Amino acid sequence: MAGKRLVYLALGGAGEVGMNMYLYGYGAPGKERFIMVDAGVTFPDMDGSPGVDLIFPDIEWIAERRDQLEAIFITHAHEDHVGAIGHLYSQLQAPVYARKFTAHIARMKIEEHGYSGEEIRTVGAMPEQAEAGPFKVGFMPISHSIPESSALIIDTPEGRVVHSGDFKIDETPGLGEPFDREAWGDLGPVRALICDSTNVFSFHPGRSEAEVGPNIRKIVEEATGMVVATTFASNIARVKTLAEAGIAAGRSVVLLGRAMRRMITAGVETGVINDFPKVVTAEDAQDIPRGNLMLLATGSQGERRAATAQLSRGKYQGLSLKEGDLFLFSSKTIPGNEVSVGRIENALSEMGVDVIDDKLADIHVSGHANRPDLQEMHALVKPQILVPNHGEHRMLREHAKLGEQAGIASVVAQNGTMVSLSGNRPEVVEFIETGRTYLDGTTQIGALDGIVRDRIRMALNGMAVIGVLIDEEDEPLLDAWCDLRGLPELGRSHTDLAELIEHEVGQFLGRADGKTIMDDDKLEDAIRRIVRNTAMDEIGKKPEVSVLISRLAA
Amino acid sequence: MAGKRLVYLALGGAGEVGMNMYLYGYGAPGKERFIMVDAGVTFPDMDGSPGVDLIFPDIEWIAERRDQLEAIFITHAHEDHVGAIGHLYSQLQAPVYARKFTAHIARMKIEEHGYSGEEIRTVGAMPEQAEAGPFKVGFMPISHSIPESSALIIDTPEGRVVHSGDFKIDETPGLGEPFDREAWGDLGPVRALICDSTNVFSFHPGRSEAEVGPNIRKIVEEATGMVVATTFASNIARVKTLAEAGIAAGRSVVLLGRAMRRMITAGVETGVINDFPKVVTAEDAQDIPRGNLMLLATGSQGERRAATAQLSRGKYQGLSLKEGDLFLFSSKTIPGNEVSVGRIENALSEMGVDVIDDKLADIHVSGHANRPDLQEMHALVKPQILVPNHGEHRMLREHAKLGEQAGIASVVAQNGTMVSLSGNRPEVVEFIETGRTYLDGTTQIGALDGIVRDRIRMALNGMAVIGVLIDEEDEPLLDAWCDLRGLPELGRSHTDLAELIEHEVGQFLGRADGKTIMDDDKLEDAIRRIVRNTAMDEIGKKPEVSVLISRLAA
Repeated sequence: MAGKRLVYLALGGAGEVGMNMYLYGYGAPGKERFIMVDAGVTFPDMDGSPGVDLIFPDIEWIAERRDQLEAIFITHAHEDHVGAIGHLYSQLQAPVYARKFTAHIARMKIEEHGYSGEEIRTVGAMPEQAEAGPFKVGFMPISHSIPESSALIIDTPEGRVVHSGDFKIDETPGLGEPFDREAWGDLGPVRALICDSTNVFSFHPGRSEAEVGPNIRKIVEEATGMVVATTFASNIARVKTLAEAGIAAGRSVVLLGRAMRRMITAGVETGVINDFPKVVTAEDAQDIPRGNLMLLATGSQGERRAATAQLSRGKYQGLSLKEGDLFLFSSKTIPGNEVSVGRIENALSEMGVDVIDDKLADIHVSGHANRPDLQEMHALVKPQILVPNHGEHRMLREHAKLGEQAGIASVVAQNGTMVSLSGNRPEVVEFIETGRTYLDGTTQIGALDGIVRDRIRMALNGMAVIGVLIDEEDEPLLDAWCDLRGLPELGRSHTDLAELIEHEVGQFLGRADGKTIMDDDKLEDAIRRIVRNTAMDEIGKKPEVSVLISRLAA
Repeated sequence: MAGKRLVYLALGGAGEVGMNMYLYGYGAPGKERFIMVDAGVTFPDMDGSPGVDLIFPDIEWIAERRDQLEAIFITHAHEDHVGAIGHLYSQLQAPVYARKFTAHIARMKIEEHGYSGEEIRTVGAMPEQAEAGPFKVGFMPISHSIPESSALIIDTPEGRVVHSGDFKIDETPGLGEPFDREAWGDLGPVRALICDSTNVFSFHPGRSEAEVGPNIRKIVEEATGMVVATTFASNIARVKTLAEAGIAAGRSVVLLGRAMRRMITAGVETGVINDFPKVVTAEDAQDIPRGNLMLLATGSQGERRAATAQLSRGKYQGLSLKEGDLFLFSSKTIPGNEVSVGRIENALSEMGVDVIDDKLADIHVSGHANRPDLQEMHALVKPQILVPNHGEHRMLREHAKLGEQAGIASVVAQNGTMVSLSGNRPEVVEFIETGRTYLDGTTQIGALDGIVRDRIRMALNGMAVIGVLIDEEDEPLLDAWCDLRGLPELGRSHTDLAELIEHEVGQFLGRADGKTIMDDDKLEDAIRRIVRNTAMDEIGKKPEVSVLISRLAA
């Protein structure tokens, strides 16, 4: 086996929260056989990716080595672990392994992209293993905020690697398998633990899903008007807890939002829930007194088109809120979404609706391991090597520090850092170029292609379009024509800015020499400069400029 | 005095955190004499106001009644209370009253706009009073996170009104006047309390500025590399605490960033600090071992151009961070700034710099009254009427509930809601149209003018510019010309999208009837539709379209 090595490489998720995608490889350098773990997305925002629909890892590196890719394993069905599988499948086309519920979700995604659901292979939990080249991979149940989450136990020629996936230590998770300390302490020698880092800065031990139920029940029982609750639809345990609280208070339960109905259906179809309370339709709900209703709505992160946001703006499927109703955010606001969620909370407040969120009452617990839980995981698994994954750089770094403090050889490896796990210590062996791919409408574009950068520039600076017509003798014909977008009409001199620009460009064309007029690039540069300087004088901004030069044939 | 009334009207700050501007009026309806309290700004963001430089209240209503405006009073020198005074002064031109430090800052602002600093009148604390029409206004010292913060005690023909301004209850504020419970309990009968609401959802009693000093000193003492700390420059007490911690640890202190130097200078010049530690320049700092340096930097909210962000990207004034250095965020991240601040924390982490923020250590306290402090304030002042101000709607509503629970007649009055304070209960008497004005470059534009909306649309949808030339016989001349901005070059059919659009528009012009070709509006509509449909087919997006039609004279 001389020269062969076991490597780890993150393509996404290491250096950010979300967009998880990891590779494990075994073989001689350049000849490794790979497996992929997870194919997740992250979400765009106005700051960095306006108009973008979805973001996933740039997979060029592994796509170029597709013949070296044995299989893809999906740890659980959260979008940041499975959301890209459909979009990227044409470039990967390796068999996909997942447990039943996750496979169900993954199957819908690749079918939407025209692939057969048979590409997704359902596997059971450990001790079942899937073979993929030099790897044998088992799905080890682990508690998280979605059913059937799994760590991967990856047996390699160099020993056992444990990929935690997203997890928490919860012995009473409400739904699905409790965290099994004994099994985790019983994995035998572990060469490397690759471990979730998102909550490393949360200092208290994680709390169990079971803790929120009684609080939610109490609040719902005391409510008199309609109660609406929002949480992540995929957190089926929570959705069930909320629904049961409604039933216990004598309320009829309504599921609002496509994701909410889809997840519950998936849960029922795959058998991960078999006792979800009976629900009524939004239509039927209109005949039920509001004090007897409990609505469960999508959109806990303030998503504009989700049920929660629509309710805050007025009606959703014939249902609307009013004074005396109660709205529960049984969720955490993800950093970056504070303003959208706040906007909804204020809109509800304006209607006279009382809002209770996780800051006002104990109605949410995180699905991730906090610092003491991570330390417990290290102690249970006793790995020789720790590679923190899933987290921003500062989280990976803090987690690696924890590992080192516990005497575990640890490394901070961001996306693109290939680490050899073959030695006693992790060793950085290569840097791979990685990045982000944007789904923009129906097109996939590179984050650094400049397309979105141009959109951001238009948003910041506004846009001036200017057209000129040059005749057969290289003389300007007609007046220049200017259209402004996203710019004030009047500036310092109180004249119409577009007209002023037309005038300035006209003056320039009148005095410009033939060499400039004849040369498209020179002419465009000169006109752009005039437009920008005129705007700067008038309105203190330099807009983006598009110059259209039309020439009559000589 | 029949028919006269005392009214309150928020033009900004009631329904948001920031942008404070309030009016008090006394007189017959429509004939009131007014005073304004504060003239603050709020800050733009990419989501709602890309490219905007600053946001202030739309003051059209009071500007139209400028002859009824007696004076402007500024409670303290935070930007969300004084930041608009320069920008709006030309439309207000009433005398401005403030205490010394605040007046100093306000003076700089109106001088920058070409007005004489003499428009700003410095007044002392109570018992001094300024007369303004029917009002007598005294500045009552109150603790907050900037020197010389004041509540206003407004004596009116209908009795005493207390405008709290931003405040906390702090008997050991580090700098400036401690909160004086006795004085606050001794105001006599108070008709109405208009009271800060920002922290109504913070349930624990507020903590004193004095509490953070020892924690900061300990952290700085234990540090070995360079220490950098950031906080709001205007929080001079905190800046002083940080500087003193540096000195105590044998470090030379450097102030980085214009605001930091400007605030300290203002503090020294106006005598609000007289014992600020000696500082060295950034240039001198380069000859000092990094273990002996303490830098105090602007930019605690992640502002891109501030010293903190620049340090996180590399150098600032010749100084740079490296592994083993320590960075303190002695501040709270304002909602909406989490992503920018996180980006900086991660960049520092990548350099190997340890970051400590208010979540990791007790190195920050809020400058605002928490819920129990608000309740104490109600109990001390014993007003007949409570009008919560400065806060989002849900904060105002919650604060009003607290008031009602304490038996005080309370009202939720957002921006534009005029409330009469003359009766036993507050009474909404009128709704005034209010809004926001954007400073965009050097121009003031209305938030609803559509200018920024167009910029947002370009950011979301991209932009297509298309030019056509129509000859004297209403026949298309030359090919159509298309320029795309912020859009993918290739779509579904793998042909150049701009060329495809040119082709489609050309085809259309070839078959269009004369009536369409001759009519600018019809032609433009038709071309826009073709561009949008072609783009939708190809890339799944409908761009914004600018159509330039040039016609050769008949």
